[in-house]
Amino acid sequence: MSEPMLIEVTRGKLVESRHNVHVAVVDASGGKRFSKGDVGRALYPRSAVKVLQALPLIETGAADAAGLTDMELALACASHSGEEQHALAASRMLDKVGLDDSHLECGCHWPFDLSVAVGLAQRGGVPTALHNNCSGKHAGFLCTAVHLNEDPAGYAGAGHKVQQRVRAAMADTVGVNLTDDQCGIDGCSIPTYAAPLDAFALAFARLVSGQGVSADRARAGQRLINACMAEPYAMSGKGRMCLALIEAGQGRVFAKTGAEGVFCGAVPELGLGFTLKAEDGTTRAAESAAAATLAEIFRDEDAELAETFRALAVSPLRNWQRTVVGEVRPAVA
Amino acid sequence: MSEPMLIEVTRGKLVESRHNVHVAVVDASGGKRFSKGDVGRALYPRSAVKVLQALPLIETGAADAAGLTDMELALACASHSGEEQHALAASRMLDKVGLDDSHLECGCHWPFDLSVAVGLAQRGGVPTALHNNCSGKHAGFLCTAVHLNEDPAGYAGAGHKVQQRVRAAMADTVGVNLTDDQCGIDGCSIPTYAAPLDAFALAFARLVSGQGVSADRARAGQRLINACMAEPYAMSGKGRMCLALIEAGQGRVFAKTGAEGVFCGAVPELGLGFTLKAEDGTTRAAESAAAATLAEIFRDEDAELAETFRALAVSPLRNWQRTVVGEVRPAVA
Repeated sequence: MSEPMLIEVTRGKLVESRHNVHVAVVDASGGKRFSKGDVGRALYPRSAVKVLQALPLIETGAADAAGLTDMELALACASHSGEEQHALAASRMLDKVGLDDSHLECGCHWPFDLSVAVGLAQRGGVPTALHNNCSGKHAGFLCTAVHLNEDPAGYAGAGHKVQQRVRAAMADTVGVNLTDDQCGIDGCSIPTYAAPLDAFALAFARLVSGQGVSADRARAGQRLINACMAEPYAMSGKGRMCLALIEAGQGRVFAKTGAEGVFCGAVPELGLGFTLKAEDGTTRAAESAAAATLAEIFRDEDAELAETFRALAVSPLRNWQRTVVGEVRPAVA
Repeated sequence: MSEPMLIEVTRGKLVESRHNVHVAVVDASGGKRFSKGDVGRALYPRSAVKVLQALPLIETGAADAAGLTDMELALACASHSGEEQHALAASRMLDKVGLDDSHLECGCHWPFDLSVAVGLAQRGGVPTALHNNCSGKHAGFLCTAVHLNEDPAGYAGAGHKVQQRVRAAMADTVGVNLTDDQCGIDGCSIPTYAAPLDAFALAFARLVSGQGVSADRARAGQRLINACMAEPYAMSGKGRMCLALIEAGQGRVFAKTGAEGVFCGAVPELGLGFTLKAEDGTTRAAESAAAATLAEIFRDEDAELAETFRALAVSPLRNWQRTVVGEVRPAVA
């Protein structure tokens, strides 16, 4: 096992805090292109695998039956920032299958982005389930249930057919049996199943390469990944790292964050998938590491793009007067 | 060097994320009562040493000249939550020396507590420098400048007499020369000087025991620490761990958080000081570790109080439906 990727947070001339990140970049045969730390570590993938969780939305025909647009498919794979456009789009998805936000079981929270939350409060608004960062994913679940004439109530529970389909699609793609004792409850109340970190990277390599999964499954995954790359704002929001990475990639890179410092992604042209996890669960470390991992992937492929990702891996740290006081950055080896 | 204290974040049956925390508990002679991890690690103490930064406010006579109450002294040592009572109290402190919030150089930010920020926005308010979590400390700095007939402008800069006094008091108490190359800029724009982690623990042991510092300095420190223990809400706010720890201690425990996962504190009756730092800078780890450290300190002294702190070291993790899905806790050895 190699050392994890080290992300440093500096202030003045000193390193103030340090993060360890486990990283796996693999091809569809499971070959490791790049590996740091403990890539066999059990990982709850959280929201980083929303594309895998949305596979049944495509495969059942529910997306086409409801006439979902690319933007709506991206929203079904989103951890969005709860901006009005996100809430409205989730509402439209539900409307397309005759449901509304009262059917959502994800819970309510104020938008994560403080300026968005404050803006909502200033307009006299309060958050509904539509503002929950997972509302698009849940709307997608509901589209599937309606399409298959299932009672949507309880769709977030592990025993509902909606979640059983998600689990089966995940297990097949990840290549690991997902057991009840490896199951936690996610922030939005659906089950999240742990598997080895590198198995999730493999899942994304399989989808983009079409190897190791059925042609239908690969097509479904590619359609979702392409939708996210075409509509990255729907999948993320203002100032988000997922947005910056996908925009920088210009159709060549997919990347998606998850809670507790997880990122999954893929580079379709190279048939590669990647997954990473900050051991301490911090987002700032995962974001820097995701950009650094993409820089590593493109190092020998496209020096200019690698440099763009290298720059995205470094973020200035500002104080309340907006003075730059340090930075978050990968440690120099 | 022993292993750091390990704080775990669980979900379902698995540990999802892990934090390493360095902890030093020392007496006034520097004797280590409890030590975990690298206690010689260079540490920016951040807001955890606001008591040390407020020493000149007492020692110059500025606090008495302005007639500051215990509540206002606690506010001068606070990282407060920006509630209206905090902002009003900071405003009163400034008023007592003929200044107002236009003199504050700490910058503005929305209150950290989301419900407080949202409440302010819903009332049509916007944050001023008075809502900055450091406004009380800055008001204290200004009281000192006014008392000594210094131009208050630029008081936050390392070259101003206000900060030079703070640096001298800190260096004397910590027992380490605080050099320019160990200096970073804090969130509120004042300098923060790095020193070994255990030196800060020693500083608090010295103040509460009266050993190793002048009688005047010890008296000033004790007055500030007593004010914080008497008025913990002024020093913190709604739902804060500093508040929970001081309230649980019922006048026997001082504890103060700082950014990037720092805590400093003292147990006056035992003549002990403590300092800890989560290597990754996360607050949740520092909070759990602070409670666990106090449980360790009281283990052989007061079994009931130790148990109270042991319970405070464990926090449930809830999802958006308020279901308990895991916990933050010290790892079982």
